[in-house]
Amino acid sequence: MVKVGIIGSTGYAGSELVRILLNHKDVVIEWYGSRSYIEKPYADVYQNFFKLVDKQCMDDNLEELARQVDVIFTATPQGYLAGLLTEEILNQVKIIDLSADFRIKDVAVYEKWYGIEHKSPQFIGEAVYGLCEVNREDIRNARLVANPGCYTTCSILTCYPLVKEGLIDTDTLIVDAKSGTSGAGRGAKVPNLFCEVNENMKAYGVATHRHTPEIEEQLTYAAGHPVTISFTPHLVPMNRGILATCYAKLLPQADGSLPTEEQIRAAYEKYYGNEYFVRVLKKGSLPETKWVEGSNFLDINFVLDNRTGRVIMIGALDNLVKGAAGQAVQNMNLMFNFAENEGLTLVPMFP
Amino acid sequence: MVKVGIIGSTGYAGSELVRILLNHKDVVIEWYGSRSYIEKPYADVYQNFFKLVDKQCMDDNLEELARQVDVIFTATPQGYLAGLLTEEILNQVKIIDLSADFRIKDVAVYEKWYGIEHKSPQFIGEAVYGLCEVNREDIRNARLVANPGCYTTCSILTCYPLVKEGLIDTDTLIVDAKSGTSGAGRGAKVPNLFCEVNENMKAYGVATHRHTPEIEEQLTYAAGHPVTISFTPHLVPMNRGILATCYAKLLPQADGSLPTEEQIRAAYEKYYGNEYFVRVLKKGSLPETKWVEGSNFLDINFVLDNRTGRVIMIGALDNLVKGAAGQAVQNMNLMFNFAENEGLTLVPMFP
Amino acid sequence: MVKVGIIGSTGYAGSELVRILLNHKDVVIEWYGSRSYIEKPYADVYQNFFKLVDKQCMDDNLEELARQVDVIFTATPQGYLAGLLTEEILNQVKIIDLSADFRIKDVAVYEKWYGIEHKSPQFIGEAVYGLCEVNREDIRNARLVANPGCYTTCSILTCYPLVKEGLIDTDTLIVDAKSGTSGAGRGAKVPNLFCEVNENMKAYGVATHRHTPEIEEQLTYAAGHPVTISFTPHLVPMNRGILATCYAKLLPQADGSLPTEEQIRAAYEKYYGNEYFVRVLKKGSLPETKWVEGSNFLDINFVLDNRTGRVIMIGALDNLVKGAAGQAVQNMNLMFNFAENEGLTLVPMFP
Amino acid sequence: MVKVGIIGSTGYAGSELVRILLNHKDVVIEWYGSRSYIEKPYADVYQNFFKLVDKQCMDDNLEELARQVDVIFTATPQGYLAGLLTEEILNQVKIIDLSADFRIKDVAVYEKWYGIEHKSPQFIGEAVYGLCEVNREDIRNARLVANPGCYTTCSILTCYPLVKEGLIDTDTLIVDAKSGTSGAGRGAKVPNLFCEVNENMKAYGVATHRHTPEIEEQLTYAAGHPVTISFTPHLVPMNRGILATCYAKLLPQADGSLPTEEQIRAAYEKYYGNEYFVRVLKKGSLPETKWVEGSNFLDINFVLDNRTGRVIMIGALDNLVKGAAGQAVQNMNLMFNFAENEGLTLVPMFP
Repeated sequence: MVKVGIIGSTGYAGSELVRILLNHKDVVIEWYGSRSYIEKPYADVYQNFFKLVDKQCMDDNLEELARQVDVIFTATPQGYLAGLLTEEILNQVKIIDLSADFRIKDVAVYEKWYGIEHKSPQFIGEAVYGLCEVNREDIRNARLVANPGCYTTCSILTCYPLVKEGLIDTDTLIVDAKSGTSGAGRGAKVPNLFCEVNENMKAYGVATHRHTPEIEEQLTYAAGHPVTISFTPHLVPMNRGILATCYAKLLPQADGSLPTEEQIRAAYEKYYGNEYFVRVLKKGSLPETKWVEGSNFLDINFVLDNRTGRVIMIGALDNLVKGAAGQAVQNMNLMFNFAENEGLTLVPMFP
Repeated sequence: MVKVGIIGSTGYAGSELVRILLNHKDVVIEWYGSRSYIEKPYADVYQNFFKLVDKQCMDDNLEELARQVDVIFTATPQGYLAGLLTEEILNQVKIIDLSADFRIKDVAVYEKWYGIEHKSPQFIGEAVYGLCEVNREDIRNARLVANPGCYTTCSILTCYPLVKEGLIDTDTLIVDAKSGTSGAGRGAKVPNLFCEVNENMKAYGVATHRHTPEIEEQLTYAAGHPVTISFTPHLVPMNRGILATCYAKLLPQADGSLPTEEQIRAAYEKYYGNEYFVRVLKKGSLPETKWVEGSNFLDINFVLDNRTGRVIMIGALDNLVKGAAGQAVQNMNLMFNFAENEGLTLVPMFP
Repeated sequence: MVKVGIIGSTGYAGSELVRILLNHKDVVIEWYGSRSYIEKPYADVYQNFFKLVDKQCMDDNLEELARQVDVIFTATPQGYLAGLLTEEILNQVKIIDLSADFRIKDVAVYEKWYGIEHKSPQFIGEAVYGLCEVNREDIRNARLVANPGCYTTCSILTCYPLVKEGLIDTDTLIVDAKSGTSGAGRGAKVPNLFCEVNENMKAYGVATHRHTPEIEEQLTYAAGHPVTISFTPHLVPMNRGILATCYAKLLPQADGSLPTEEQIRAAYEKYYGNEYFVRVLKKGSLPETKWVEGSNFLDINFVLDNRTGRVIMIGALDNLVKGAAGQAVQNMNLMFNFAENEGLTLVPMFP
Repeated sequence: MVKVGIIGSTGYAGSELVRILLNHKDVVIEWYGSRSYIEKPYADVYQNFFKLVDKQCMDDNLEELARQVDVIFTATPQGYLAGLLTEEILNQVKIIDLSADFRIKDVAVYEKWYGIEHKSPQFIGEAVYGLCEVNREDIRNARLVANPGCYTTCSILTCYPLVKEGLIDTDTLIVDAKSGTSGAGRGAKVPNLFCEVNENMKAYGVATHRHTPEIEEQLTYAAGHPVTISFTPHLVPMNRGILATCYAKLLPQADGSLPTEEQIRAAYEKYYGNEYFVRVLKKGSLPETKWVEGSNFLDINFVLDNRTGRVIMIGALDNLVKGAAGQAVQNMNLMFNFAENEGLTLVPMFP
């Protein structure tokens, strides 16, 4: 059995890791890290685990943990892991970081958008961006995986085939994303109170959201040239789910014609036809967040609008699963040579 | 007292007309039309009106109604009013139509997007598009007002000043709109059941939604040249509220420079500085649907994104009030020389 | 114009007072008290009031306020008013207290259930319990009104006629109440976060909720003998609304027979037949919170269950209106000889 | 592999059976019955199963099905199974009926509360009431299991130990239950529309709900004397979850004393101490529906109120799992000698 430690296990993403890993046949959770609840029974913090988890919360001791377990998930605030990571630790244990610390290769971009100094830039080069469908082989051999953000997983994978195949004009790419409220975390803040969120909708972080450079970097790799996008997140009154609606002008091809419906569908098929977790829907079906809730699926489809010369690409995932904990476990499965969907055959829950 | 008749009074927009008009000091509702509930007490259909309304539902007799009242609101399916309207009726009564029958000047466009034949195109020319902030003077003298759609009111007014002033490139204009579920009406359909909508989010009518040509026509008038947009509506799990997030590239001005924050704000100020119902928020505040719920306000603001050369314009309104019944009453107030906000000083309800 | 001051104006009940009073033709709000937001524009705290309120938040200076205004609403934590109230203040200004400080006549009961010392018990005797439908005449002449709690207003008025008329056995009385989340206030606490409340339901304060002795005291007055009840509040994922489901055995009458449907209905009719704000529904219609949302109405009905010998009494109100701010304004109207429903003809909003 | 057929697979309970059985290692679903969607791919009706289920919906042919599969789940309207069941069918296949047809032993009671004639009363005697924690041994050998209703499972199990042990006065027993909306099914009806349910709360079926006699019958067996209760269901704006709040007077014991906290806890421990699916919470923790959502757990706790001499018992379950499909699979596991929790180790999903 692979021994797992979780730092930040009492946040929503941390508790989702627990939910998933409890049904993973090859792992055992050894360490429920939570600075806020030290020595409190974990099941007292999340009562859904009553009688399923009997361990207590432990302090966040990264060095100690590295000695005790085989893999550490850090579901921690930005800067935490970068502030503590050492070569010695990485020699002892694999790390899957759910924060943004090692997602962005250009440390200056990280420091600008996150407004903090990066304390261990020497590991940025080695870290593998854990978008499994794109970087699968590199992940298998990684010591340090930077698990992608929720908005970014949805946005990148939804646009990736068309960017990679040069079917859209990336200068016109706009991602309008909508998220359930669990993405805001479990912090006690007035704007996240039930009465403030319920029956309400708003955009936030307009033109400044930190997931923007992460999306741009990955799409830049795919395009082979710099990509700059408009990204606008919105808060929606539901617990889970991200829907990304992506707009771009079609790019005239070598013969001057615009890509056809068939060409676009072929591009999606090329990259996702064999993927278990990315489901390209049938023509006419549009993704809905509820159809993937609780699962590690990302549902995608597109509409070609000849009237405007645009393609509208739409993706939906559960922000806590494929957008966080589920993808982290998928990464772990790759790193430990488990079946990629071990523990992740969760069927979406409806209604 | 002005006598009012409502045809389609038992839909959500119809009942919202009743809610508003009951507190309007200059009118009395004489006729609660509802083909589905003839002779049933209106307050049995909408129990919120218990002891406030004692009348029964009446059949939808437009000719008879024209003789009895001063103004008719038709909150009816597309094609209803166009199928019955006559010169004789219009000589007797003012009509405010909440359907799309007389919103679009080009009958071919109407017939294409709505898929039905227009039965009385001879009245299209005379009909005034009831967007009060734009067509106020024409509305005052109109016999027939075409009350704008919910998405369209929000989308047009949010973009109008920048289109009118030539500050944005309309070829790049994209409207990503999100709506509460009351916009889907009170029909008993599986996709509108609580369990299907709750905890769910989806796009629908992508590239085909009927409000598209309505928005395009009005923005075409404002721009002085044809405007074609991408418009994508989304369904969100809340009762009321529309949020429109609008994207466009800034248009270089005569001197080659791009419009500044100040120029954009000045444009909004120019058109809405004296408007009671359109509130341009302070810099840094973004519209939220909850802040206008239950009221006739439309809240607007924008973010200038120099990184992408785009401006993101955001508007929020209550789809049943400023997006339907409230604007209809605002139109009536103009047509009858009442104070424009009579009966419409509803304070938004929070939480 | 009557000058109003609000202490605690930035809580949910305080902001609801503002929403209501803005449309009250005889008053003007002079003082928006809020210790947390001093000198911040009130409309920055509650953006629904943008362009409707231009005043800033003021400190909570009760003495100064007493000199400046005619009536003070205190929407403050328990103990606040009791700690500051003086005879001099009461000589200058009328006070309507939305806290529990002066609701309970027996200071020992107050101190036991609230766990704090009462600092000015000398005013308890004079304070009038502001349940308008029961204590209307006393309220007219009061200097100090103790505005009832949300659960208590709903529970007491729903049972009152049957208790008063001796139709039920008060020893068997059980009140199972369900509330929307605004009753929990605007404090930033984890249990009130959207994700914790949404899609969830729970009982709380079982056998210990502070509204219990308040209900018992008033029903004791009505019954003419001590009444002890079981009261269980529940939290429900919605913003507004309380539903109280009340159970009691029917009490055999002088001739040994149990009360009939007609006798019970007659009792409700006797006490509420002429009340504007209490609507006893037609037989077969049950109260729903949505039918009263945003209004000062309390809807009531009952079911006689001959199989069990019980009557089930059900009441529904909006906890922020009839359960707090609306009833407070109703009290003010009585104290200042305004029409009792002035400013309170709010029509319930549906959907 | 055990072959499974589902009749009524496109209702909410039917689709929940599919969700659960897809992760059951010992069964395969052979037949997705749905009269409404014959020949339509099942995953087109419930898009969450896209790429997970490739079968089409089949007609509801009970006889044919009996020949093809080992066990049939009927998630059908009342009267369906009773109208078709024969000895021949029962000789071929085991049946787990999620309708009420065989839950009630007294056919007169069934016909009175359900208002339909029972077409095959000859099988009522043989049918085992599938409340696993109570009737486990009988279920193992049953050909026909009557799967309990959602409200009833929650209500009976919450009260069962105290009734069985004679600790409460069953004449005073009141069950106030609250349910999410999935219990109302997927039928397209106005009262179940999002806008009608959202932000709303109501009681329904007061004193007449059909689950009443089912609860009474089972508690009568437990008590050893006839039990008559008041049962009131409520509709709450959430998808899943039932909370039952149960009130009863404590029954003086042989020595005249009332049961103590310890005695009551011991009773719960006696019956549920070894149960996997019934979790009796620690003192001070109250059940919340969210803590069991998506799982087969029933969480229970109680509060002893010495002030009133009552005990308040509270239970929470997911109406589609322990209240329907999960319990049905638990029954199947017993009937086929699988581990009782095979396929049912679903961890509750939070948030």
